[in-house]
Amino acid sequence: MSVEKDMKRKANPVFQDAVKDAAAPGDSVKVITPKEQVEGILMPSPHKDIVMIKLNTGYNLGFEKKDVKEIQLVEREVLKQKTSLLMSKDEKLPTIVVLHTGGTIASKVDYTTGAVTAKFTAEDLLEKFPKIGKITNVHTELISNLMSEDIRFSDYQTIARAVKKYALEGVSGKKVKGIIIGHGTDTLSYTAAALSFMFERINLPVILVGSQRSPDRGSTDAALNLTCAAKFIAETDFVGVAVCMHHSSNDDDCAILPATKVRKMHTSRRDSFKAINSTAIALVKPVGIEYLWKDYPKGTTGKGLGSKEAVILRDKFEEKVGWLKVHPNMDPELFRFFTSHYRAIMIEGTGLGHAPTNLGEKNLQNYAYLQSFLAKGGIVAITSQCLFGRVHPSVYTNLRRLSEIGSIYCEDMLPETAYIKLSWLLGNYSPEEAKKMMVQNLRGEISEQSAYTDDFLKE
Amino acid sequence: MSVEKDMKRKANPVFQDAVKDAAAPGDSVKVITPKEQVEGILMPSPHKDIVMIKLNTGYNLGFEKKDVKEIQLVEREVLKQKTSLLMSKDEKLPTIVVLHTGGTIASKVDYTTGAVTAKFTAEDLLEKFPKIGKITNVHTELISNLMSEDIRFSDYQTIARAVKKYALEGVSGKKVKGIIIGHGTDTLSYTAAALSFMFERINLPVILVGSQRSPDRGSTDAALNLTCAAKFIAETDFVGVAVCMHHSSNDDDCAILPATKVRKMHTSRRDSFKAINSTAIALVKPVGIEYLWKDYPKGTTGKGLGSKEAVILRDKFEEKVGWLKVHPNMDPELFRFFTSHYRAIMIEGTGLGHAPTNLGEKNLQNYAYLQSFLAKGGIVAITSQCLFGRVHPSVYTNLRRLSEIGSIYCEDMLPETAYIKLSWLLGNYSPEEAKKMMVQNLRGEISEQSAYTDDFLKE
Repeated sequence: MSVEKDMKRKANPVFQDAVKDAAAPGDSVKVITPKEQVEGILMPSPHKDIVMIKLNTGYNLGFEKKDVKEIQLVEREVLKQKTSLLMSKDEKLPTIVVLHTGGTIASKVDYTTGAVTAKFTAEDLLEKFPKIGKITNVHTELISNLMSEDIRFSDYQTIARAVKKYALEGVSGKKVKGIIIGHGTDTLSYTAAALSFMFERINLPVILVGSQRSPDRGSTDAALNLTCAAKFIAETDFVGVAVCMHHSSNDDDCAILPATKVRKMHTSRRDSFKAINSTAIALVKPVGIEYLWKDYPKGTTGKGLGSKEAVILRDKFEEKVGWLKVHPNMDPELFRFFTSHYRAIMIEGTGLGHAPTNLGEKNLQNYAYLQSFLAKGGIVAITSQCLFGRVHPSVYTNLRRLSEIGSIYCEDMLPETAYIKLSWLLGNYSPEEAKKMMVQNLRGEISEQSAYTDDFLKE
Repeated sequence: MSVEKDMKRKANPVFQDAVKDAAAPGDSVKVITPKEQVEGILMPSPHKDIVMIKLNTGYNLGFEKKDVKEIQLVEREVLKQKTSLLMSKDEKLPTIVVLHTGGTIASKVDYTTGAVTAKFTAEDLLEKFPKIGKITNVHTELISNLMSEDIRFSDYQTIARAVKKYALEGVSGKKVKGIIIGHGTDTLSYTAAALSFMFERINLPVILVGSQRSPDRGSTDAALNLTCAAKFIAETDFVGVAVCMHHSSNDDDCAILPATKVRKMHTSRRDSFKAINSTAIALVKPVGIEYLWKDYPKGTTGKGLGSKEAVILRDKFEEKVGWLKVHPNMDPELFRFFTSHYRAIMIEGTGLGHAPTNLGEKNLQNYAYLQSFLAKGGIVAITSQCLFGRVHPSVYTNLRRLSEIGSIYCEDMLPETAYIKLSWLLGNYSPEEAKKMMVQNLRGEISEQSAYTDDFLKE
């Protein structure tokens, strides 16, 4: 399985020296220490000094690398066989695919260290939540096993290509009604935005689901989030990318949140994911789905299984895009680094989209760096660290100076979304096209007008 | 006036070549162009190509520098004379000081460009809001005329020294009951945190006030914010630094917000300032002050006017502190720059305080840079871009890796506050002391335990 080989070669170099080419993650192995011999499936380890295997009981077991004498290969790619089963047998139920990328939603307490580590198989997940099998036929595939803070653009490509495969080919000749992507919560909203841009056309709902508490804990939110996502997919005519997470701190309903307007707003609560400058698309409640958006993207292409036009995927990203966070006392050396090292810079400005570039010797140096960067064809896109509201280039005289030299103002786009969009645009379009498209609303990332409500935090 | 001379020499180098030593901001001048001769007070200009004067009508007038033949000095320091008046004559009213730093609260529409520019005098401000003169004797002083995105650590020192002067010396032999600092909203919360740390002891309330709409506009929030701040100062026994801004989108009450737990959460709304992981200290309502905190810092030192022990100010800052924003696909070159250029780094991590430092070749390089930085005595302080909630080093195995190498976890401190605190600590204490104090609650920046509420955005 190429993903696993890739992980072995690149993502987790520990295996190169630990087991050489003898065994790769997903293989069944026997770990031999001076004290014991234990069989299990070799896992990617979260720590370079640990060799991790999954036991038949489902638990992961870690060994200190220095204690391991030998790792014997028992059988190749055992994990792949285990995870590719169609788990429900009811032909009438819609078929969904759960793609697994890692994160808390697939984690349990690691009894060797006491901390939470990622579990490996999507099968594990569904064994834990049999309810999903009662509303859908479920096919699962392992994509990666990363904590989400480590996800890179290359992982977006891996996920998107798997989505495309299932969207076009189905599973065992059956059309797939929708895809759940199990994902760590830290960067879940970034991935949601990335997939949203990457799929210029998609023919099914792609729902990212995370959990804030490990499924092994009583307080886990994984069950509700996954079940609501499956239920939503089974019943909805929505197509496109969205996020499904707890709507409130009560464990009774979930929100389907817009992929380009969602943000993790709390480190630990179950209801951490909030729509910013927008609302949830829908709520999935015990009684059914309540749509909050009158117009949401629906499946109108009419292109079914096997039709290549049903999906258009543009999956390249420009790596040389910097994220410049504005704060007091900014250092011209920082501006020098950003303007010499990157092709484009997303500035997370203050207020309406400001940066310290106006008065004072150092601030004027900052401005000079941006000016010369823009003059040489660099791209500067401006958002606000306020998160809520809209940037505006022409309210203040000072601010116009950034606009005058060619900075782009990203309206009410989140900094997270603007960074992803800019990287994606420059990967797939010319700089001139990218600059134009940056301020066009492609996937709901820009609202025409912001609704004025009594309490913007609760919009 | 040394501040103005400073501005002339450093903050606004345009005046060096435009008018040489002939006139400085605050002086009365005559601007001579081929077409006209106009008298007014020379203003710091927001743009290097513009010479700005304030006319007797109160309006600012800008001239393109290339059109200006000569600037004749009429009278020195006219502005200082104008702004240092005690404006109310009622001896019984408490005396407050309004220090002016610039920003929208002191701005009006600039009819030369159509945009909003900063007005210069605090007197202008109080002429506009006579209500304040009915509840307090008001003394005003001009500190600077910066849009707040340009404020640097040196400006914090200027503000703090003025606060200290009035706190210790009063005005014309009268004790000052409290100080209002008019400030641009963009970085108002950063300045609030900075002043909070700088004053280890203070004997009066120091209230930062901004406005989101220019006082020239019908929808301005300046009147209510300033009036509420004056009313709060007149009636309260609170001492310390806080922020006074609109409590809701209704124009009827203001919130007194904790200086180290407040953030601008919307680009343009009047109720943009919100307490994060905390609540407002008090609400200033038409009927009076409602305290939401049972315990708030009160004036207990008993050290009055003239007693030097009434105020302890530590006003140094370390400039070599970097703010590293975590996002997907981070570049080892960025980590290399931060770890080679700064003495300390505040990481605005994802989720519970994560950074891409675990799996994958580039992420492992990122980790190696941090590891070697810490080994050489660098300081790494970790917060979360979620803003709400608390970072935690020991939930995830991956995360422990950052903790193991000596990173500091800043509990539920805001990234903004952590950046300011770290810079301030390293300016005034040894690295070892700074590391210890970083996780101690000095000014309310760390909550012992977060209260669990139904809706964290509305805590």
